[in-house]
Amino acid sequence: MRIPIDRESPVPLYRQIKAFLEEQIVSGALAPETRLPASRELAGELGVSRVTVTNAYADLEADGLIWTRVGGGTFVASASNAVWARAEARSAPCDWPVWQQALMGRSGLPIRRDPDSLHSDALGNDVISLGDGVGDNELFPLQDFRRALSAVFHRDGQKALGYGDRAGYLPLRTTIAQILSLQGIPTQPSEVLITSGSQQGIALVAHVLLRPGDAVLVESPTYVGAIDLFRSMDVRLVGVPADSEGMVVEQVEELVASARPKLIYTIPTFHNPTGTCLNSVRRRRLIEIARKFNVPILEDDFAGELRYEGRAQPALKALDPGGLVIFVRTFSKILMPALRVGFLVASGPVYDCLLNSKRTLDLATSDLIQRALDGFITVGKYQSHLRRACRVYRERRDAMLDALTRHMPPGVQWRKPEGGLFIWLQLPESLSARELSPLAGKEGVLFSPGSAFFPGERDQPYLRLTFATQPPAAIEAGISRLARAIRRAVERDARAVRQPQTQEPVAV
Amino acid sequence: MRIPIDRESPVPLYRQIKAFLEEQIVSGALAPETRLPASRELAGELGVSRVTVTNAYADLEADGLIWTRVGGGTFVASASNAVWARAEARSAPCDWPVWQQALMGRSGLPIRRDPDSLHSDALGNDVISLGDGVGDNELFPLQDFRRALSAVFHRDGQKALGYGDRAGYLPLRTTIAQILSLQGIPTQPSEVLITSGSQQGIALVAHVLLRPGDAVLVESPTYVGAIDLFRSMDVRLVGVPADSEGMVVEQVEELVASARPKLIYTIPTFHNPTGTCLNSVRRRRLIEIARKFNVPILEDDFAGELRYEGRAQPALKALDPGGLVIFVRTFSKILMPALRVGFLVASGPVYDCLLNSKRTLDLATSDLIQRALDGFITVGKYQSHLRRACRVYRERRDAMLDALTRHMPPGVQWRKPEGGLFIWLQLPESLSARELSPLAGKEGVLFSPGSAFFPGERDQPYLRLTFATQPPAAIEAGISRLARAIRRAVERDARAVRQPQTQEPVAV
Repeated sequence: MRIPIDRESPVPLYRQIKAFLEEQIVSGALAPETRLPASRELAGELGVSRVTVTNAYADLEADGLIWTRVGGGTFVASASNAVWARAEARSAPCDWPVWQQALMGRSGLPIRRDPDSLHSDALGNDVISLGDGVGDNELFPLQDFRRALSAVFHRDGQKALGYGDRAGYLPLRTTIAQILSLQGIPTQPSEVLITSGSQQGIALVAHVLLRPGDAVLVESPTYVGAIDLFRSMDVRLVGVPADSEGMVVEQVEELVASARPKLIYTIPTFHNPTGTCLNSVRRRRLIEIARKFNVPILEDDFAGELRYEGRAQPALKALDPGGLVIFVRTFSKILMPALRVGFLVASGPVYDCLLNSKRTLDLATSDLIQRALDGFITVGKYQSHLRRACRVYRERRDAMLDALTRHMPPGVQWRKPEGGLFIWLQLPESLSARELSPLAGKEGVLFSPGSAFFPGERDQPYLRLTFATQPPAAIEAGISRLARAIRRAVERDARAVRQPQTQEPVAV
Repeated sequence: MRIPIDRESPVPLYRQIKAFLEEQIVSGALAPETRLPASRELAGELGVSRVTVTNAYADLEADGLIWTRVGGGTFVASASNAVWARAEARSAPCDWPVWQQALMGRSGLPIRRDPDSLHSDALGNDVISLGDGVGDNELFPLQDFRRALSAVFHRDGQKALGYGDRAGYLPLRTTIAQILSLQGIPTQPSEVLITSGSQQGIALVAHVLLRPGDAVLVESPTYVGAIDLFRSMDVRLVGVPADSEGMVVEQVEELVASARPKLIYTIPTFHNPTGTCLNSVRRRRLIEIARKFNVPILEDDFAGELRYEGRAQPALKALDPGGLVIFVRTFSKILMPALRVGFLVASGPVYDCLLNSKRTLDLATSDLIQRALDGFITVGKYQSHLRRACRVYRERRDAMLDALTRHMPPGVQWRKPEGGLFIWLQLPESLSARELSPLAGKEGVLFSPGSAFFPGERDQPYLRLTFATQPPAAIEAGISRLARAIRRAVERDARAVRQPQTQEPVAV
């Protein structure tokens, strides 16, 4: 126990020790029943005589803060003592250093509410969340992954517990390269870099390519985690409008020529939050523009494998003339978030820069988890899990589309996504997601308000619904509750009430 | 399989498909024996007729690139075919985009060699590595951790596989707060933020507090991972000299006044690489200066628990008058690196900024691993493992000190560290670690050259030896080999030969 005693101080050492421990006990930092070090041991550590420590302990015991078991150690007393009331006083606001006060005023990120805490614990079991950006945890392949982990412990033993290869476990990189090649994205293991989820992949690219003041071209709306990251780096966000076929690439050339972005960040397949796919013509056009203006493309393929119907589009990475596109993907959505494993694919000198950036940010991704994941994938469990996820999520998408058609009042619009996790809902123009939120909460349903997904944080008449997280019955109930909340909001909103008949529900 | 076909192209679709697959097979991206999608399935995905796909497959089979099992699928042929030779041509240097060429010239980080690959695989089993910054993987508590993981699967099931609380699993944060409080560092769970190792803790602080061009005060030498991180952010490093009692704090006030750093980064306890501890008077003085000049302190306590003897010093965090010191620690050194779990402790507004930064960098640390780690710690395994590690590492430190005294030639100097993992060796002045490296490699021993640990990357007559990784017999052999290499270098070096008798081996 490294108690900060001051030998220069006029206060006797035993009193300093007593005061420190008293503060710790009263504040709750040393919990009741915590065993304190033996006096001989503490005296040795602090370089004081044993009598000093026993005197301090005796005073604390006299105050009822600790007690000694005959022949067996010294313990913090239980919390019944009145002195604990002082703990309250301690948590009063304090005078933070000036540099901390400056942080308070900084126009940084909003603290976003934690989707998991929204989900169940905080709000009771009757609340239906259609706001999480994640699949259904009941589908996570728990037993298979557990077996894969056991196999790694058995096969690799202690070898699996080190830092491992900084670029990622080579067999896993090889497996990933094979999967991608089979999906039409030619990849070598040496081009794959394992990351802690695709969020880290995006962060690595941002740290290598961007400096404060640089511009980044993004779809508007786009993934909130990317917006937050770019904002935290003081990077300028230039939004490109999107329609039913993804980013309006026709406007990109002009925007690139004027804003001179250092990066184009795009989610061309099953876009988050809108669920749309960039059409083939636009994909090729985007590559051409990027090449012409010498701008790297970061392709976020977080849900590219979750196609339920329709014609597959080539990944931008597959159209890459060489070193132009960096591709990121995660296992969080297909398998489970707790893996914290994703990867990026990059060719050329930028790969080593990204690897170095990975090392500076967190050294490496867990070798143990990577080995287990590789075992899981190579025994074919990944492909079969993917098929199962597609089947289940397709059913849920259809359930949500069906419920929307039946329940939504006029003026609410949405499109049918061919894959992914999300449906993007447009409210009647007079309504904002922000005013809808408390009404929906009262009905017992949660969603992701659309404004967070736009580079500019104005209020927007959109919301994102996740169909993948909940079973069909919960989707039905959730959409019905949401529709009720929207109706209430429309009724409450005088302007909306005036023209409720001019629009019909539209499923494009 | 998202094959990038171009419907506008004059090339027939079946030829486009054939050309794409051929390229994939020849390059090795589609490995031999890979099963290709059934023609009906692929036709559906690409939105082409089935005949188009069967024509493409027929051409590939005629070229000997694929083969069809009667009634059971189409497979990539084995690699015996001469056509594979073309794979070589494909990996020839290509014209990278201009933005990539700019990265090649960038005065960025050197690609550091990977300690684990140095360790055994790359260099044969007879090489003894005294260069790794990590404990002995034979001591990693494999079975206990495996049981803790099993218990989590059993107890929490699917619940353990989500993103979890972004600040970290609350029971683990509570356990950490209790351990720290018992170590004399008063901590509340709400002040603890779980990170992916202490490297990420340092990265979070850097991203919140630093911008390009800002200055950071560091010990010279200091932890290479921090140097790399700060450099990658274009931050200026201001080095403070260190002596046998740590950073020479007497020089800090002047340096702070002139360089106006935005952060002081320090490893006050069992410093990396030198193994020294900052004395108590300097600790208090450093806090005073930081407060006076309004500069936050980042205290890296990566090995603070590994004390083998001597008087415990208070952590800087324990002397913190309020919100001035941010404290980081990792479980990589005490338990095992593959956890990728560390934590930071911060109070005041900066905590929320750090949490936001964590979210932008990788969303969260694996909830599954955190739950297992908490189970491991709370059943008392952590404290007993720590006692065992201290006993074993102390023995190894003594073995290395003993071997150094017996083997090292005159002019080589070192100090006895009271804890930690490292001994810092000073070579005779005329020698540099860089010229010693190849000679040591020939003798079959590896070390960490000292120059990497200095903010300026000049060659330095220092090297870092890790005593924790190897058992005593390997330490004895490794030091004997190293001494032989040093003797050779001294002999080869004419200037050193002139005055070999003027210095005696010194163990301070």
